[in-house]
Amino acid sequence: MKSYTVAVLGATGAVGQEMIKILEERNFPVGKLLPLASARSAGKTLMFRGEEVPIGLACEEAFSGVDIVLGAAENDIAKRFAPAIKAAGAVFVDNSSAFRMDPDVPLIVPEINPEDAKLHHGILSNPNCSTIITATAVNALNSIAPIRTMVASTYQAVSGAGAGGPVELWDEVHALDRGESCEPKVFSHQIAFNLIPQIGSEQFEGYTSEEMKLQNEGRKIMHLPELLVSCTCVRVPVVRSHSISVTMHFDRPVSVEEAREVIAKAPGCRLVDNLAAGEYPMPLDTSNQDLVYVGRIRPDLTDPNGLCLWCCGDQVRKGAATNCIQIAELLVK
Amino acid sequence: MKSYTVAVLGATGAVGQEMIKILEERNFPVGKLLPLASARSAGKTLMFRGEEVPIGLACEEAFSGVDIVLGAAENDIAKRFAPAIKAAGAVFVDNSSAFRMDPDVPLIVPEINPEDAKLHHGILSNPNCSTIITATAVNALNSIAPIRTMVASTYQAVSGAGAGGPVELWDEVHALDRGESCEPKVFSHQIAFNLIPQIGSEQFEGYTSEEMKLQNEGRKIMHLPELLVSCTCVRVPVVRSHSISVTMHFDRPVSVEEAREVIAKAPGCRLVDNLAAGEYPMPLDTSNQDLVYVGRIRPDLTDPNGLCLWCCGDQVRKGAATNCIQIAELLVK
Repeated sequence: MKSYTVAVLGATGAVGQEMIKILEERNFPVGKLLPLASARSAGKTLMFRGEEVPIGLACEEAFSGVDIVLGAAENDIAKRFAPAIKAAGAVFVDNSSAFRMDPDVPLIVPEINPEDAKLHHGILSNPNCSTIITATAVNALNSIAPIRTMVASTYQAVSGAGAGGPVELWDEVHALDRGESCEPKVFSHQIAFNLIPQIGSEQFEGYTSEEMKLQNEGRKIMHLPELLVSCTCVRVPVVRSHSISVTMHFDRPVSVEEAREVIAKAPGCRLVDNLAAGEYPMPLDTSNQDLVYVGRIRPDLTDPNGLCLWCCGDQVRKGAATNCIQIAELLVK
Repeated sequence: MKSYTVAVLGATGAVGQEMIKILEERNFPVGKLLPLASARSAGKTLMFRGEEVPIGLACEEAFSGVDIVLGAAENDIAKRFAPAIKAAGAVFVDNSSAFRMDPDVPLIVPEINPEDAKLHHGILSNPNCSTIITATAVNALNSIAPIRTMVASTYQAVSGAGAGGPVELWDEVHALDRGESCEPKVFSHQIAFNLIPQIGSEQFEGYTSEEMKLQNEGRKIMHLPELLVSCTCVRVPVVRSHSISVTMHFDRPVSVEEAREVIAKAPGCRLVDNLAAGEYPMPLDTSNQDLVYVGRIRPDLTDPNGLCLWCCGDQVRKGAATNCIQIAELLVK
């Protein structure tokens, strides 16, 4: 079986570390692993398949001989190294938002639009975390009745802001427990026992960049160019797994029974929907695994063509690292 | 100035204690305060205007000579004592949901429908906490363009479940910090660093009792008998203040500027809406005061007649105790 030289750009961040764990877990055909990071981490080592692997310096020369680069870095880093990655003949599977809306770059959720991966010209993008989780939850419904509009409110975990998010949440909890005040650094306000209704910066008509992703990326992933989405993104004091409350309108009525049936069979989804038994998706239950849990499916009482649901998924795994590696698996199939 | 004998039924609970604090704070004309509780607390004392006041036993005989009973007890207690309260000639301002939908019982948010208070026959109800906060936020908009539908997702603090909620949240945080597991008692699942998408029990088409209140009570308070609401209620690890993400559809387009202008002037509201400056309602900022903060006002991208907003309010105060005392103030005016 063929094996590949795989570089992870941003190997020491929350998503990069998870990528390396998942490459091993899913038995991806890695011949050689090349973890890349900034000068602060280069020269250290990390563990892969029981062996110490040196961390290389992320620089233009680092991509020579690499087959696949998994991008777990910020937009500016992704943009900076994309030309060198292409020049080296490697394929770049990037988790940043730098190239997502580029018409030449496929934006892939492997359970939804795997066929789009074939159209790449050296770069494939991984969608936004909340968008992956929501799209995975609703796409099976979209396949039986096109989705026209969605109203979504998110409940996003602190680990969505990187490894520093959970550290800051716990630091604040400890400070409050000692009767001290909090000094937020990662977040713009105290997040312990609080909610911050802003993720990203203002982009369009009072919506943040994070809020516009569900519409703009959702259109591209689900092949719904006219999809309209109003999204409200809120940071909540949860360590891991994002949750989304969604109300969708279709081009015809979809019954709760029909919806449950297709979601129960949908790839990447697990139906957890028994209110009477206290069973519904919760972030604690969806953390450290790859399925998107879907429940609280019920009719939208405001529109006969609408349905409401609640979904949760691990945004570090399915929302980022796992989805990237699933894209890489499409490439090597 | 006339003064009144005021009983507080359920005086030792979270809402009852807050009511006594607010009677003092707002200088309500209390001639005599009669805190009533179960046998467990009867005989103890509590402080009111710097004096120790004995807690009486809640029983049918306790209401003789009382002018106003503020109800801070559960539905079964409210139902049990309502006949004795009426027979004693007292007016019952009840925070439970027992009588809210009774056509003979006014359901009041004093900033919205104070005139309804006059129609009482001895009982007036205080609405559900999330309903008060949402209705206070949106009613000024409703007065310029009737609201047809609302889609709402709530982020409800643990103190909404009573004084035991915050104790359980902190107990769980401490247990997790020691590396131990949690044993939830007040909530059906762990709430620390988690979300529970169920408040109340199943009532209608997969919606919980809590979720149906925004439609049913909202119709009565805002005089909108045909209002349609799809609500998702979620318990979040926040100590105090409920937050609600709302998308409304009106009978005509309402601009963001128009909405900001009327909300800025609306009684009981404070407009906090400057995304670029990181200013929006947050539960930490709305706790221990009576205004509903409203922000993140923006067009609904899915419907030209729609608007989205985010609001927060202290559900123990404006959502319960303060609103009850404001109702009592209407009675003694």
